[in-house]
Amino acid sequence: MRTYLDCIPCFFKQALFASRIATDDEEKIKEVLNRIGMLLPDIPLTNSPPETGRVVYGVVREVTGIDDPFRDLKNESIKKALKLYPSLKTMVNASDDRLETAIKIAVAGNIIDFGASPNFELEKEVEVVLKKEPVINHFRSFRERLNRTEHILYLADNAGETVFDRVLIEELSKPVTYVVRERPVINDALIEDAVKSGIDKVADVITSGCDAPGTILERCSKEFCNYFENADLIISKGQGNYETLSNEKRPIFYMLRAKCPVVARNLGVKQGDIVLKSGLQAA
Amino acid sequence: MRTYLDCIPCFFKQALFASRIATDDEEKIKEVLNRIGMLLPDIPLTNSPPETGRVVYGVVREVTGIDDPFRDLKNESIKKALKLYPSLKTMVNASDDRLETAIKIAVAGNIIDFGASPNFELEKEVEVVLKKEPVINHFRSFRERLNRTEHILYLADNAGETVFDRVLIEELSKPVTYVVRERPVINDALIEDAVKSGIDKVADVITSGCDAPGTILERCSKEFCNYFENADLIISKGQGNYETLSNEKRPIFYMLRAKCPVVARNLGVKQGDIVLKSGLQAA
Repeated sequence: MRTYLDCIPCFFKQALFASRIATDDEEKIKEVLNRIGMLLPDIPLTNSPPETGRVVYGVVREVTGIDDPFRDLKNESIKKALKLYPSLKTMVNASDDRLETAIKIAVAGNIIDFGASPNFELEKEVEVVLKKEPVINHFRSFRERLNRTEHILYLADNAGETVFDRVLIEELSKPVTYVVRERPVINDALIEDAVKSGIDKVADVITSGCDAPGTILERCSKEFCNYFENADLIISKGQGNYETLSNEKRPIFYMLRAKCPVVARNLGVKQGDIVLKSGLQAA
Repeated sequence: MRTYLDCIPCFFKQALFASRIATDDEEKIKEVLNRIGMLLPDIPLTNSPPETGRVVYGVVREVTGIDDPFRDLKNESIKKALKLYPSLKTMVNASDDRLETAIKIAVAGNIIDFGASPNFELEKEVEVVLKKEPVINHFRSFRERLNRTEHILYLADNAGETVFDRVLIEELSKPVTYVVRERPVINDALIEDAVKSGIDKVADVITSGCDAPGTILERCSKEFCNYFENADLIISKGQGNYETLSNEKRPIFYMLRAKCPVVARNLGVKQGDIVLKSGLQAA
C-alpha cells in the first residue's frame, strides 16, 4: 500500500507522541519535527507508510537518544493482556467454533497500538471487537488452507497483542514460526515481548530482520525471506504488515482492525472494522 | 499566544485541507507539504500560530496558484447565515437581555471555521452554543465598558460569522468600525464578505492591513494601529485574533469558541467551551 497525503500530518502526530514519551525537552521535540519536515521532499508517496514510519521513528531515536521509548508501555500492555489470558481461553473453550473464536481474539488484540490509534481502553475494546463480525471474512478459505498446510508463518504486530496471538497459535495445531521486529519501533513486538507473552512455549520465535513498523521484504533477513517465499500459509497481523505486503501474491491472511481512515479506505471498509482477508482473494 | 508542539501536525492538516480545495493535483499538494516541511526549522515556537498560518496558507496559494481557495465556501457560509438572520433577530427580540443574547449569537457564529475545525453543521452547532453559558464570562465588565464608550473597534473572524456579528452590532447602539483581513486567508472575512453580510449598513468596514488569520500588529496598517491604540472598547472575535493579541494590555473583549485543544488549554477551558473574556481581567 502506498502513502496517502493524509499520512503526512499523521507522521508528525506520531513523531510528536513518541518524542513526548521519550523526553520532556520541548526543544528536542521541535528538532525531531524539524528534521522530519526537512526529510519530507525525500519521501515519495509511492513508499509504503511503514517505510516512512521507519525513518520517522529513527529520527525520534536519534534526536532524543532514547532507543526504545515505548518499552514501559509495551511491558504494561503485556501485563494487562496476560491478566486477560485466562478469560480468553475460557471464551475459546465455551465457543462452538474454537478456531473462529481464537481468530477473533487475535484480531481483538490488534487494538493495542501506540502508532495509528494510541487512545484505547483494552478490555472495553476487546469486548467490542469480539462482538463484531469481520467485514471482509475469508475464514472458510483460511480453514481450508490451514487443513492442508504443514507449517504456519505468523507475522506479529504489537507487544501485548502477542498474548492474544498465543491464544490463536494454541488452536492452530500446527508448527508455527512467529516473526517479530528486529529493532524497537513504536510498540511493535520484539523477541523479549514474545517471550514475556509465552509465545516461545508454543512457537519458534524469529525476527524479520527489519526495523520498520511493518515487513519491508527488501529490508528483511535472508532467513526470513526464505521462510516467506516457501510458506504455504502466512498470518499477517495488523496494519503495518498489511501496508507493506498488500501487493504480494502469496497465501497471506491479513488479520487486522482498520484503525486509521487511510487503511480503511484502502481496504474498502469503515474505520474500526475488522478484517480477515486472503491476499489471494478479492474482497 | 505562542505556538505549541501540537500546532505542528495541525498546520500540515490545515495545509492539506486547503490544498485539496484548491486543486486535485496530488503532486502539487505534496509539494505544498514538502515546502512547509522545509520551512519548519524557521518557525520558532515563540511565533503565534497565525504567524505560521500566514506562511502556511501563503505556500498553498503560491504552489496551487489559487489565490482564494475558500471563496465558494465563504459565499455558501454567508448565504446559510443570511437565511438564519431573521430567526436570530427573533431570538434577540424575544429575550430578556438583548445584549447578552446578541453576544451569544455572535459567539455561536464563530463555529464557521474551515481552519481549526472544518467539520461543522451550522444550524445544529448554533443551537448547541446558544444553550451554553460562557465558561469565562466577563459580560458585566463588557456592559459597563460599553456604556462608557463612544466607539467600538470590532475585529472580525470568518465569513458567514459576519452575519452573526451584524446581529450584535445592531444591539451595541454605538458607532462601530468593523475590521476584516487584507487578503484571503482560510475562510476569514474580507471586505466583500462583510458587504455581502450587510455589515456596511451598520458599521464602517476597514481592513487590518494584515494577511494572517489573526491580527499581527507589526503587519497591520498604520490606520488600523491608530484605531487599535486609541480604542476604548475592542471586540475580538475568534481564535486567530485571540492568539495574536492575547498578550496586549488593551480593553479587548475576546469572544470565541475554543475549537482546538491548544487554545482551550491556553485559556484554561475545555474544547468546545465558549468564552467572553476581558483582556484586562484575570479569568
